[in-house]
Amino acid sequence: MPSERDIATGATFSSDNNSSLIMEDSLRRYRRRIMRAMMQFLPAGGDPPYLYELVRNYPSRSGKGLRPALCMAGTRAFGGKLAHAIPTSVALELFHNAFLLYDDVQDESFLRRGAPTLHTTHGIGIAVNVGNATSLIALQLLADNRPLLGSQLACAILEETEQMLRKSLEGQALELAWIRDNIRNLRETDYYRMCLRKTTWYSFIYPLRAATLIARCNSVDVEELDRFAWYVGAAFQIQDDLLNLNGDESLYGKEICGDIWEGKRTIMLIHLLRKAETRDRRRLEEFLMLKRADRTAEDVRWVLELMNKHGSIGYARHCARSLANVALHTGETAFCNIPPSRDREFLLSIPAYVISRKK
Amino acid sequence: MPSERDIATGATFSSDNNSSLIMEDSLRRYRRRIMRAMMQFLPAGGDPPYLYELVRNYPSRSGKGLRPALCMAGTRAFGGKLAHAIPTSVALELFHNAFLLYDDVQDESFLRRGAPTLHTTHGIGIAVNVGNATSLIALQLLADNRPLLGSQLACAILEETEQMLRKSLEGQALELAWIRDNIRNLRETDYYRMCLRKTTWYSFIYPLRAATLIARCNSVDVEELDRFAWYVGAAFQIQDDLLNLNGDESLYGKEICGDIWEGKRTIMLIHLLRKAETRDRRRLEEFLMLKRADRTAEDVRWVLELMNKHGSIGYARHCARSLANVALHTGETAFCNIPPSRDREFLLSIPAYVISRKK
Repeated sequence: MPSERDIATGATFSSDNNSSLIMEDSLRRYRRRIMRAMMQFLPAGGDPPYLYELVRNYPSRSGKGLRPALCMAGTRAFGGKLAHAIPTSVALELFHNAFLLYDDVQDESFLRRGAPTLHTTHGIGIAVNVGNATSLIALQLLADNRPLLGSQLACAILEETEQMLRKSLEGQALELAWIRDNIRNLRETDYYRMCLRKTTWYSFIYPLRAATLIARCNSVDVEELDRFAWYVGAAFQIQDDLLNLNGDESLYGKEICGDIWEGKRTIMLIHLLRKAETRDRRRLEEFLMLKRADRTAEDVRWVLELMNKHGSIGYARHCARSLANVALHTGETAFCNIPPSRDREFLLSIPAYVISRKK
Repeated sequence: MPSERDIATGATFSSDNNSSLIMEDSLRRYRRRIMRAMMQFLPAGGDPPYLYELVRNYPSRSGKGLRPALCMAGTRAFGGKLAHAIPTSVALELFHNAFLLYDDVQDESFLRRGAPTLHTTHGIGIAVNVGNATSLIALQLLADNRPLLGSQLACAILEETEQMLRKSLEGQALELAWIRDNIRNLRETDYYRMCLRKTTWYSFIYPLRAATLIARCNSVDVEELDRFAWYVGAAFQIQDDLLNLNGDESLYGKEICGDIWEGKRTIMLIHLLRKAETRDRRRLEEFLMLKRADRTAEDVRWVLELMNKHGSIGYARHCARSLANVALHTGETAFCNIPPSRDREFLLSIPAYVISRKK
């Protein structure tokens, strides 16, 4: 977990142009590869209606493909074969899409990847069913690892998957609980703990752990690798929260300020609750007590202005930069026994990418 | 699939008192056993809040425990050890509870097993998360079959489980699609096809197939066993639809006439749409076009009266009885090589039970 010291170091973090180009190029190539494999694997056709054709809906919108790229690049960087990572990487991208479907229902979001969320167009019942089908297909893919990787390795990946799914559900439960119980005295460590489970585990820890397993690689210190993933994940989530407030809706693809509408406990909101003076704090607490539907655009604008006034947004940017910085150094230690390659470079360019991304 | 002929035979079906006593007693014993095993296995405690303690919520309400009892009794009747069937039976009961959680969200139901549905007390977001956690724990139990049953058999059960989950999702999709698209020209075969996937597969086909696998039993004709499960499942679902209209709410545990409120395509509604005269049919179609929230208690009462007037309810009762009758004969063939035992008797008393049950 990031310590206060990690955040305090806050060295300016800049990415050089060359590694950013390698990053974008690799991401594009891996994304193409995984989309092809996924579309081949997904059941076609409309029988029964509103099921399999809708499983294709979210994956067809232009996602980043970051998670499968991590698993594929990791497998190659650690000395494994790309083909061995394909089913697991497709499964990972499908789990991600299932989480998005559930998340959109749970957060009552309207936009996802630039288009209306599935439950707003097809109803909550169908969206939940499509989420369940998406997870099930992902599980089937992991079962298909058996002939490819052998029974023992396939089972080890399944166990990692179960742990990842559990962490994700626990993180989601925590976030939902904070909103339901209107918790207002959170510390940053609470935020990082939630974020470890909700986002970091499935987005960074799991893909890289799976890659070491698939590559049968012993030359990576797994503890150090987890720490790398940990820092990257926290930086990633803070950048996500920043884009939610200040991003370009056409790139970011979700409704801007959705997090404020939802009362989501972001690092900015936690900072603001600590910094706001009594009268503002009281109004903010009253805002948080309302149901989402009872909040107004004027309220939301006011919260955003208050965050700007108290430097909460600048503070979050500073945290993300510091975390990315520590991530880079941790990555260099974790990968010190890994021979140089384009894929190793890709992995080390992730910290810079997560805090500079626009989507 | 039940043929018109099967329904037409419609011999009166009566259960004798002795087998009904064996049935009730076995069901109670197996239910106690499975509840104990489940409660031991489920994670305790409230960290994170609103997750694991809520996973216990639906299972703690007094369900029938029919599905695990089928798997346990089947395993013993087919010559296997009861202990070998426990994890699979607990998993099955957990999947059932997960389906109930999703189903209640999807149907916007208020009551389940005599208490408010989870999404009405805790919100849709938490209910969906609890459903996901419940399924995940069930999957973990099936993974734990490996040391107990050996890798090959555990994998075979997992494959059966994936198929069962797929069928259940497809059945659910079909039912949701009929309501969403306001389909009004369904035939009974459409109903039976939906019912095969939505209810019959996980409630009857899967538990009995799993039992033959766990018992490593070759003396049951699996095709005949599936047919037995098939007829029982159809009778079970029709009885469920009947209880929904005429049951005792305190025993049945769901809101009476909920299916009419939801516009659910039951065999009674399909019958009524065929039998109602033009003016009534038009009014019925207008009712079905409304959203659930726009339907009134008066409308619902009118539909129920119309079903009574046109004999739709009597017809459904007749169908259920005929199906149970055919099920019994099919069961006697399927189990002809199985030595007599209390568990064999239990299985053969299921057809009578499903159409006489009050909950």
